[in-house]
Amino acid sequence: MILTVTLNTALDLTYDVPKLVPHTSHRVGDISERPGGKGLNVARVLSALGHETTVTGFAGGSTGAVLRELLAGTSPDGSAPTGTPAPGTAPAPSPAPITDALVTIAGNTRRTIAVVDRATGDTTQLNEPGPLVTADEWTAFLGRYEELLAGADAVALCGSLPPGIHVGAYAELVRPARAAGVPVLLDTSGEPLRRGIAARPDLIKPNADELAQLTGSRDPLRATRDARRRGAHGVIASLGPDGVLAVTPDGIWQARPPAKVLGNPTGAGDSAVAGLLSGLVEGLGWPDRLRRAVALSTATVLAPTAGDFDRAAYEELLPRVVIEEHAPAA
Amino acid sequence: MILTVTLNTALDLTYDVPKLVPHTSHRVGDISERPGGKGLNVARVLSALGHETTVTGFAGGSTGAVLRELLAGTSPDGSAPTGTPAPGTAPAPSPAPITDALVTIAGNTRRTIAVVDRATGDTTQLNEPGPLVTADEWTAFLGRYEELLAGADAVALCGSLPPGIHVGAYAELVRPARAAGVPVLLDTSGEPLRRGIAARPDLIKPNADELAQLTGSRDPLRATRDARRRGAHGVIASLGPDGVLAVTPDGIWQARPPAKVLGNPTGAGDSAVAGLLSGLVEGLGWPDRLRRAVALSTATVLAPTAGDFDRAAYEELLPRVVIEEHAPAA
Repeated sequence: MILTVTLNTALDLTYDVPKLVPHTSHRVGDISERPGGKGLNVARVLSALGHETTVTGFAGGSTGAVLRELLAGTSPDGSAPTGTPAPGTAPAPSPAPITDALVTIAGNTRRTIAVVDRATGDTTQLNEPGPLVTADEWTAFLGRYEELLAGADAVALCGSLPPGIHVGAYAELVRPARAAGVPVLLDTSGEPLRRGIAARPDLIKPNADELAQLTGSRDPLRATRDARRRGAHGVIASLGPDGVLAVTPDGIWQARPPAKVLGNPTGAGDSAVAGLLSGLVEGLGWPDRLRRAVALSTATVLAPTAGDFDRAAYEELLPRVVIEEHAPAA
Repeated sequence: MILTVTLNTALDLTYDVPKLVPHTSHRVGDISERPGGKGLNVARVLSALGHETTVTGFAGGSTGAVLRELLAGTSPDGSAPTGTPAPGTAPAPSPAPITDALVTIAGNTRRTIAVVDRATGDTTQLNEPGPLVTADEWTAFLGRYEELLAGADAVALCGSLPPGIHVGAYAELVRPARAAGVPVLLDTSGEPLRRGIAARPDLIKPNADELAQLTGSRDPLRATRDARRRGAHGVIASLGPDGVLAVTPDGIWQARPPAKVLGNPTGAGDSAVAGLLSGLVEGLGWPDRLRRAVALSTATVLAPTAGDFDRAAYEELLPRVVIEEHAPAA
């Protein structure tokens, strides 16, 4: 089982409008609702790849209840599973179950609203603040987390911290995973990333902006090496259309998509995390894990629905990802 | 008891953002949630004026459940009652109870989102489509409505029709009210208004645009008389900053606020409906009903929260509304 942690889950709404014009009134066409927050997105991709996944973190209030119904696939407007094959292609593997181990809180899970202009696909994002998490709720979560670690092959710690959670929270979650020998990937930004790295996670997956914020450098190789010196055993820097740069104890690789693609990059980073973790628990070597991460994130950019991935594109891209090994440097 | 009917209720969300910029991401500051749809707004003002009110119409799904919790005042984030007095003024009368007689449906009550720019107060509106109402749900509603009419002193039929409800629905609701001798006010627009008028409601309250759409004329007096000929016994045309023009079986009056005011006109029409109906059931004559309608709608424009009314402004404006009686014309 792969465990994903999402402390700041969200009910993600997508509104279709002809064109967003400030200070006017809009009739929304189609609405879609789905469970959101980075760790839930990672879990959805892992499930589509056939990996049993457990999600934990917090959910509460009426929006939290809707999120959990959608996660259980019981809601009448649950969207189609991700990775739906294109007509005429081989059937996808059955999605593996996602187990809901979220901790119930008194506060209301936040909503995010993506307002999508119909003609252009341009998106305007409105993100509610997260609910306040109390000290007792955090303690309840820590107990649940340690229990779940006992059965986990790997764990991903994903996204922002809701109000009430101390900024060193990810360090507090990295340590028991390391102590239990469960490989731990940290995907966050800012001060929570800086503090979390000091607890020596196995992997971090920053993008170029997050790396620059952490290290002060915009040179990918230099910044990635600096991030390793700060405590991360392996750093997988996601460089958007240039793929990923991996600086690991076993070597340095760059993995690139075979061609530039146009589309919506929302969720591409979460798909990369799913690629890395699934490859890790399957015992693949670094080049194959990186190939999977790049093919999945590129297939996510290509999918018509934000955060979904195009399975046919994924399978077509996988053997064509370009892997380059760098000489290990001083 | 005054009955208000809202077939297309809504959970109204207000999002505070620094400034809405299309195709960028926004962190929402304050969020407020409240029960919405015109008849629920009318009921809130009636309650603040001390009138017992019953609301019916439809509510369903998770958003419908939140709407009903807020209506019952049991939700922890329920907003303050409308008409809160300014510091140092006389206390407001206790709000009268609002009885929830909404009919539960399978569909999800729609949300509306008002995105308010913090500095300017400019509002961008996003309105979800209403839920599909089935034939069985409509039949259940008709039964509930006829029961409620038996105890009603007046009834207001308010707002748009959700999907699944036939365009002649308001005519079907006007007739039993007329048959039961319960004064009925219809506040809607377009084809539902045109069809509803033919069933001879006691009052309609169109604004200038709705009147022009109905009659083809932008001349207020001419359009208002035309609307009467189509079947409405009395027509109260709301003319924004010019107040209201009332063409009734008892005479013709214009009622104007004492001065122009600046503010947010959202909900001003609903406050006018509450003024008209409360005056009717209290046995006031037309000039006093119109005075109340104009003072309430002006005090709604002046209130900092959209749809709320400023009680101190209301009490100060009430004796200063300018009433002018027109000579009855041919």
